[in-house]
Amino acid sequence: MGYGNLGRGVEHAVAAAGDMELAAVFTRRDPASLTIRTPDVPVVSAAEAEAWQDKIDVMILCGGSATDLPEQTPKYARLFNVVDSFDTHARVPEHFANVDEAAKAGGKVGIISVGWDPGMFSLARVYSTAVLPQGKNYTFWGKGLSQGHSDALRRIDGVKDARQYTIPVEASLEAVRSGSQPELTTRQMHTRECFVVLEDGADAARIEREIKEMPNYFSDYDTTVHFISQAELDANHKSMAHGGFVFRSGTTAGGANSHVIEYSLKLDSNPEFTTSVLVAYARAAYRLNQAGDNGGKTVFDIAPALLCEQSGEDLRAHLL
Amino acid sequence: MGYGNLGRGVEHAVAAAGDMELAAVFTRRDPASLTIRTPDVPVVSAAEAEAWQDKIDVMILCGGSATDLPEQTPKYARLFNVVDSFDTHARVPEHFANVDEAAKAGGKVGIISVGWDPGMFSLARVYSTAVLPQGKNYTFWGKGLSQGHSDALRRIDGVKDARQYTIPVEASLEAVRSGSQPELTTRQMHTRECFVVLEDGADAARIEREIKEMPNYFSDYDTTVHFISQAELDANHKSMAHGGFVFRSGTTAGGANSHVIEYSLKLDSNPEFTTSVLVAYARAAYRLNQAGDNGGKTVFDIAPALLCEQSGEDLRAHLL
Repeated sequence: MGYGNLGRGVEHAVAAAGDMELAAVFTRRDPASLTIRTPDVPVVSAAEAEAWQDKIDVMILCGGSATDLPEQTPKYARLFNVVDSFDTHARVPEHFANVDEAAKAGGKVGIISVGWDPGMFSLARVYSTAVLPQGKNYTFWGKGLSQGHSDALRRIDGVKDARQYTIPVEASLEAVRSGSQPELTTRQMHTRECFVVLEDGADAARIEREIKEMPNYFSDYDTTVHFISQAELDANHKSMAHGGFVFRSGTTAGGANSHVIEYSLKLDSNPEFTTSVLVAYARAAYRLNQAGDNGGKTVFDIAPALLCEQSGEDLRAHLL
Repeated sequence: MGYGNLGRGVEHAVAAAGDMELAAVFTRRDPASLTIRTPDVPVVSAAEAEAWQDKIDVMILCGGSATDLPEQTPKYARLFNVVDSFDTHARVPEHFANVDEAAKAGGKVGIISVGWDPGMFSLARVYSTAVLPQGKNYTFWGKGLSQGHSDALRRIDGVKDARQYTIPVEASLEAVRSGSQPELTTRQMHTRECFVVLEDGADAARIEREIKEMPNYFSDYDTTVHFISQAELDANHKSMAHGGFVFRSGTTAGGANSHVIEYSLKLDSNPEFTTSVLVAYARAAYRLNQAGDNGGKTVFDIAPALLCEQSGEDLRAHLL
């Protein structure tokens, strides 16, 4: 459902799976206006999705978290097994409750917040916390483009276009890695680097000040602002690369021994990795529903073997 | 069951868990000869374990993989929910089949091969393989003491005592981290460092040659041998530290984009970390059995939420 960056990523990931088939692409646009990569797959109006209930095993929702998914995931969880990448951490409890209710009513499985954060990073946090209950978690993001912060820059009067990179502070990564369990402020964990294209005649000094003082987004960070041309932005700042680090630093035997668990991702394409995770959890959604399960789920509720194309026997012999 | 390094680690980890209580320590030794850390917990002869069926929720097996667990885990899986740290990778399919049969017969849950490798490293391999089906896995161990290789050194005629460290090759770690998916030989992945105490009059040159030419254990590696005194070995080579790295380097969109997933552990105490993992999976074994499940399991079959003391609601609100 949806054919932007995520939809195209799902299309690639389904093609890479030996046990999956792309049944249809649903869109809110005019289906005739859409050309997809896979030959012979129907492009269908979202308005007609309901008629596909007996034709597809799982629907992967590729909309945005701000307005699409809060409405779409509960709506479609009544009709289909669904997976989404809802990533507004603060609204997860509310979204989960809505999806859980709808999925239970429809006898379907709805897995929310699948991707890398939330998603693989959440798994790193939960496993590490479970095995080292005495300790501290740290999550660092980047280096990578933040869509939310780039949008905030573009809302400033006089800004024509902009990109914002979130960058972890190397010295803090090293301090956490050492096992010293430092207390880190927001400023000590990440820096923010902005590339801004001005509208003709805009006041650069005023805009730089406005950026650096913007509450929540920039005021708690060391922020660098570069003014560049649209051509330079288009040439050098279109990468979808991202990544980050999850640490747990903990102790055992009442503090006698220290342990550091580190999980990190270095991704060339944020949307393609996100959708690779979505597609693995789509497999699990279908399998769980086939086994009689239903309701809302997150990555915490899914046994890892359910994500894999291989049999349990294969996994035990080769990956255990 | 068993009160060596693992048994003592379990004792610490249970004390750190808010929802667990150590019911008893079972031993094959004379119970009167054993003093344990926790006051008022009975030490019971292994021969009397059967009488404890209605008194304990899960038995954590703390024996060795060579001879203890192949016999103990199936035996006790008929009577109790059990968790073990069986780590002989090649014999996992056979051990799993035995435990599965026994646990099903007894209506209990038996989780095998829990720890860090197999265990947390297996999870890293399975999740990464599921989300990046096109790619290559790499596992590096160390720096840390290898019990099996130390034992092999001690079996050599003229060796009084010895310790062997497995050390990952830094340049190969960096090559994998870069996403280049190198083909690495055994020799390129790890080096082996041996600290050997000779018996009086032993031939150092012959022993060094015998070590370096030993098939499977050393002949495929760059091996360094240091001859030291027993006092030096006792003073400097008793650390239980270990760790390692699991990588998956993969691509999406038919090879257009690369991604590197890295999971690493830096552990002060190998047995204490192993038992922290065992205790988290003991929680899952009991919960699964309470929910009506039974049979053999591995970490691949367990949803992460089952490992956690926190509720699902708590986990979604704070760790997702």
